[in-house]
Amino acid sequence: MHTLSVDLADRSYPIYIGSGLLAKPELLQPHIAGKQVCVVTNETLASLLLPELKASLAGYDYCEVILPDGESHKNLDTLNTIFDTLLEARHTRKTTLIALGGGVVGDMTGFAAACYQRGVDFIQLPTTLLSQVDSSVGGKTGVNHRLGKNMIGAFYQPNCVIADTGILRSLPDRELAAGLAEVIKYGLIADSEFYHWLEQNMIALKAGDEQLLAQAVRRSCEIKADVVAQDEREGGLRAILNLGHTFGHAIETHQGYGQYLHGEAVAIGMQMAIELSVIMAWLPPELSARNRRLSEAAGLPVHTPPAMTGRDFLELMAVDKKVMDGRLRLVLLKALGTAVVTEDLDKEQVLAAIDACRA
Amino acid sequence: MHTLSVDLADRSYPIYIGSGLLAKPELLQPHIAGKQVCVVTNETLASLLLPELKASLAGYDYCEVILPDGESHKNLDTLNTIFDTLLEARHTRKTTLIALGGGVVGDMTGFAAACYQRGVDFIQLPTTLLSQVDSSVGGKTGVNHRLGKNMIGAFYQPNCVIADTGILRSLPDRELAAGLAEVIKYGLIADSEFYHWLEQNMIALKAGDEQLLAQAVRRSCEIKADVVAQDEREGGLRAILNLGHTFGHAIETHQGYGQYLHGEAVAIGMQMAIELSVIMAWLPPELSARNRRLSEAAGLPVHTPPAMTGRDFLELMAVDKKVMDGRLRLVLLKALGTAVVTEDLDKEQVLAAIDACRA
Repeated sequence: MHTLSVDLADRSYPIYIGSGLLAKPELLQPHIAGKQVCVVTNETLASLLLPELKASLAGYDYCEVILPDGESHKNLDTLNTIFDTLLEARHTRKTTLIALGGGVVGDMTGFAAACYQRGVDFIQLPTTLLSQVDSSVGGKTGVNHRLGKNMIGAFYQPNCVIADTGILRSLPDRELAAGLAEVIKYGLIADSEFYHWLEQNMIALKAGDEQLLAQAVRRSCEIKADVVAQDEREGGLRAILNLGHTFGHAIETHQGYGQYLHGEAVAIGMQMAIELSVIMAWLPPELSARNRRLSEAAGLPVHTPPAMTGRDFLELMAVDKKVMDGRLRLVLLKALGTAVVTEDLDKEQVLAAIDACRA
Repeated sequence: MHTLSVDLADRSYPIYIGSGLLAKPELLQPHIAGKQVCVVTNETLASLLLPELKASLAGYDYCEVILPDGESHKNLDTLNTIFDTLLEARHTRKTTLIALGGGVVGDMTGFAAACYQRGVDFIQLPTTLLSQVDSSVGGKTGVNHRLGKNMIGAFYQPNCVIADTGILRSLPDRELAAGLAEVIKYGLIADSEFYHWLEQNMIALKAGDEQLLAQAVRRSCEIKADVVAQDEREGGLRAILNLGHTFGHAIETHQGYGQYLHGEAVAIGMQMAIELSVIMAWLPPELSARNRRLSEAAGLPVHTPPAMTGRDFLELMAVDKKVMDGRLRLVLLKALGTAVVTEDLDKEQVLAAIDACRA
């Protein structure tokens, strides 16, 4: 097991990474302050992993919420069902919410914890590669609105994150690939050596090599924890974690949540950001093909949805959170391993980058 | 004009108290960081005060949300209409929400600001005595759930509070009285001299004497700001501000939000807390009649709703936020001006206190 720390003064917390951690109540229980716990999970995981977790929680005043699967249910109505359960079970301010699931479960549970009685404790048990390397770390929580993704939420830190890499064995191929998109992102924005390592090991990672996946989770969490510690509320630096996300959110919104997995949409978005960086002469042209090869080796899409026009992108990106005072801001690359946030964009160049990603 | 400060490190903010402050854009504008503002108000105030405020906001990218009147609309669905408007008007993270209204508008606007894009700026312009002395100060925001009041929310501080005491002239009698309940509370929990002053001046206060009301607002805000600065997130001391509220919330929940004004329910609840403190021999018996006289002079009810049994109270109080790990906690008085929070309660004595408040 490896332990990292997210360094946020009185809101600091540990991330435990390793195989078989879900079966270790001695990791979980010290982070539960009261007697009440509420596990939030989804339909799929309720049968797969919940029995094991429940065994670790014997002796607690326990309740559970089984959410419907999928991003399309990540909204205020579903959130309210968590509050229903907590209130019906008379859980107080001393309760601890436990998120057992991927990004949707983690984001909603974290936001429910932020809001229930104005804030209760919560713990993240991320079950997908994507959530282990991204959403479970850093305290971004929230739900979608019909007019945009993650538009309603809070910055709210968990008591701890337990990333059981053994769970990744049972992850569907497509979800593993979606997680690898965010792993690739860390190489692109912060660590060119890690990017090379990914190029060398992508076949084995994609095949589910547990040792290599644990290494990838660890390096990804280190980079994310480091960025979050420097800028918890996304005043500046943290925005680089959004490489590919503004384009990606436009794809998710246009196609309807659930058509593309988040990581898939981000993979396309990162390719677009690279194309734009190349067009702006910030990156050498070969990085475009190189990243396309790496993404395809990971099983990720790199082309825009056929039905989406350049205008669709521009329109949808204008309601993205990364737009300040009406001006589009994008994360681009100044070099492999070096990201920058810029508002200095030329509309024609953005459209050309979108075009460069057509199939 | 009088200026107080709520002392919360990097979240500190000023409270401006005085007559005619709404007409002073030079007070408001320095607290708006960006170019976008969204005023949230209700149907009644939209015609009374909104035109004046809107004039102070010329030049800003402006939108507004008119909420339906009343506590019964303080829920997640109504909250969502604020998000609808903000997203349709493409307001970014740099927007500033302005709450023009009483507690319902202030609580919902503050919570919307806490959640919109994970947190934007907001300003409180409280228009009732109750909100000027209580809800606008201290950062408690939220909405109701069908199973309990204020169960979903956040601690989120405004950029500033502007309490225009001139507005109180047009306040209906019943709402003025409801505000006086919280004013009386500050005397009971923290300042016996202020309580005496209220006994001497209640007739004039009730008649709307603007000078005296401004003094009452100022002393009330001073006490509240002092308590909040010591305990922002209600870890301990701040709970004394809930004198009468656990009983009061039970009344509001049982009778349906809107039957009793919040201040009216709290007035009854405070009388119950005093009766219980007397029964426990913490307070001299004469305080019971003395507070009943003061409340009645303010035009406040002091008797329990006829249809509510002792059992109703106990059951509804068990889901109140002030209940820790299933044990009832109440704010009681050790002396006039000295409040304590206790779990050391005898059920029969609580029932006797409820009985003592029957009409």
